[in-house]
Amino acid sequence: MPNLITHISAATMSPSHGSAYGAIHDAAIVIDGERIAWLGPRDQLPAHYHNIEAIDGRGTWALPGLIDCHTHIVYGGMRAGEFEKRLQGVSYEEIARQGGGIRSTVTMTREASLEELIDTAADRLAELRREGVTLVEIKSGYGLNLETERKQLIAAGKAAQRARIDVRRTFLGAHTIPPEYDGRADDYIDLVCNEILPTLAAEGLIDAVDAFCETIGFTPAQTRRVFEAARIHDLPVKLHADQITNSGGAALAAEFDALSADHVEFCDESGARAMAAHGTAAVLLPGAFYFLRENQKPPIDLFRRHKVAMAVSTDSNPGSSPTTSLLLMLSMACTFFRLTPEEAINGITTAAAQALGAAPEHGTLTPGALANIAFFKITQPAELAYRIGHNPCVGRCYRGKVEFEE
Amino acid sequence: MPNLITHISAATMSPSHGSAYGAIHDAAIVIDGERIAWLGPRDQLPAHYHNIEAIDGRGTWALPGLIDCHTHIVYGGMRAGEFEKRLQGVSYEEIARQGGGIRSTVTMTREASLEELIDTAADRLAELRREGVTLVEIKSGYGLNLETERKQLIAAGKAAQRARIDVRRTFLGAHTIPPEYDGRADDYIDLVCNEILPTLAAEGLIDAVDAFCETIGFTPAQTRRVFEAARIHDLPVKLHADQITNSGGAALAAEFDALSADHVEFCDESGARAMAAHGTAAVLLPGAFYFLRENQKPPIDLFRRHKVAMAVSTDSNPGSSPTTSLLLMLSMACTFFRLTPEEAINGITTAAAQALGAAPEHGTLTPGALANIAFFKITQPAELAYRIGHNPCVGRCYRGKVEFEE
Repeated sequence: MPNLITHISAATMSPSHGSAYGAIHDAAIVIDGERIAWLGPRDQLPAHYHNIEAIDGRGTWALPGLIDCHTHIVYGGMRAGEFEKRLQGVSYEEIARQGGGIRSTVTMTREASLEELIDTAADRLAELRREGVTLVEIKSGYGLNLETERKQLIAAGKAAQRARIDVRRTFLGAHTIPPEYDGRADDYIDLVCNEILPTLAAEGLIDAVDAFCETIGFTPAQTRRVFEAARIHDLPVKLHADQITNSGGAALAAEFDALSADHVEFCDESGARAMAAHGTAAVLLPGAFYFLRENQKPPIDLFRRHKVAMAVSTDSNPGSSPTTSLLLMLSMACTFFRLTPEEAINGITTAAAQALGAAPEHGTLTPGALANIAFFKITQPAELAYRIGHNPCVGRCYRGKVEFEE
Repeated sequence: MPNLITHISAATMSPSHGSAYGAIHDAAIVIDGERIAWLGPRDQLPAHYHNIEAIDGRGTWALPGLIDCHTHIVYGGMRAGEFEKRLQGVSYEEIARQGGGIRSTVTMTREASLEELIDTAADRLAELRREGVTLVEIKSGYGLNLETERKQLIAAGKAAQRARIDVRRTFLGAHTIPPEYDGRADDYIDLVCNEILPTLAAEGLIDAVDAFCETIGFTPAQTRRVFEAARIHDLPVKLHADQITNSGGAALAAEFDALSADHVEFCDESGARAMAAHGTAAVLLPGAFYFLRENQKPPIDLFRRHKVAMAVSTDSNPGSSPTTSLLLMLSMACTFFRLTPEEAINGITTAAAQALGAAPEHGTLTPGALANIAFFKITQPAELAYRIGHNPCVGRCYRGKVEFEE
């Protein structure tokens, strides 16, 4: 027997309705099993659904389940102490000398048990879920050896399962150079391409491959080697690109038909053009922009002009974006980057699905899509971006199972 | 029979313990009625409390109930539509011409019933309460006539009661010039001083008096008249000062022994010196700084040098700070203004109590103080400022009644 939900407005985020947010007022949604069977104005509900007892949507707005398409949410330890030291005036160098920074996260992730990684990540995912997130991308990259990269990716899957969120797992072995390879970046890339990536791909733990292409990360030539290895295993790629300098990362990503180029603050017109041509989405990460107090904003107007899809994500990680609020990222995307609320909400639904290669199953409310739905107690969709630090999600539908809070 | 809480760390925020955050590890708190009867290291618990069955604090950190010392949380309507229009490129002037801006809030507050104001404010206060807030200041100032200012202050009291939060009510009749007094600011100040303030003071609805002293608000001379009227009724004053320009607001506030001068981005050294001399706290409002995309930061170093107490608050209001997250303000105070986590947490406890004249009953965990306590699932106090958009409050004690979430 299908489920019917009424007493809702729907922001379908599908352009086919021709309205802002693809909105349908006084909508009805029919769910059959894990999928949306029908969706439209309630007064057009087909007759054969009329005898279903409706679930009361309580006057909420239904949106596609939200998608957080760039996270590093599986890690050991925590870095509040480092945050405090920096504000007390201790320099980055001194903190690094004391073993802080990303290397401390690598150490603590290596030391953590699988169970600890699952527990802490599941807690963080539960916070995303409370806001209506139903699909999350999780990267490895704090292991930097076969054993720990594997442990991270396994933990990502189990934590998502426990939190009842769909997951895409991204292998980010080329995140930073591990201490044991200091000064031997090419040797480490050998290890990534010849051993870690093939092994974990064969184990079915990888949905996509990412790298950190930056002056403080890997060179374009090293990144290219990682991408070529991904191609051998028929895995799509993504790239941390042009965050600190313009190193042509966005163009390199596009050349490999990357799903997304992420950060992209320094992306230029040729990069934007290449991304548009190859269907590579731009992933905007306002939480890191905020936490790192960056000044260079991503080139929104360029992306608009060239019709590059713009996704928005938390970048959830302990070093540069310790947040688990995707709704707060809406506010920051509008306030810092001047996205419109509709662009920003598109960025955590439709465009985020594109950045994960997860459309059309995810990202819009459309017949045939997975019945992953978030219900918000708001008067209009823009309210999600207007309020700061507020969670009006009062109901969720995950793979067809509807729950409203009492 | 007193209550005993153990299995906690306590950040008492009291300097008498000589540790950062006034921290006591493995602490015990004894509560008798509505007040803290004893607090200290568990192994020093006096013998006559040993027979009390302890409430398990679950390994949390206990902090003084948080204090939000500057809000405009009672209002009619909502301004998400205006937010969206601005991001779509509509000018402020056009929005004002369409009836937007603060005047739309005045209109909607006048039109709202008392019950509507209580309902919506109680919902917003419940969000503050979830984060561990136990005392809130609420201003009038969207009524701008006797009837509606009264309605706002009555709603403030009732909403706080419903949300189980202590409240201080501030009369802000001199917030802006109401439309019916356009071009007649002095006449409106007459009304405020001769009719509205005396009437509402006599009705016992006012704990303090505030004004908006700014080029776009009232002049220092008009502000002085309001403060003199407050003095006649023996009411303490506060001031929205030096937000947009340095108009000597902080010094004026200090001259009247104001509890606080708020915003104070443009406060200069003489202002800071005067504040210190008169015990006037600076109230920092990073939410408005963020939402209005301001550049001028309050002079933190000046306040440190002159030992001006720095409080931190949400400024919760529909036009310039639509937030109900005091914990997010910690993050923003550290990230935007470079407060240390300890200064920021002091800003929502001890300094906020000072800004409301509510110490020592509120703001520290000390014997004799009200047993208003927030319990956080964190590993160290700095974590409250480090995480972005996260609420680890898992327990509350309001006037002696302890509740932990399951």
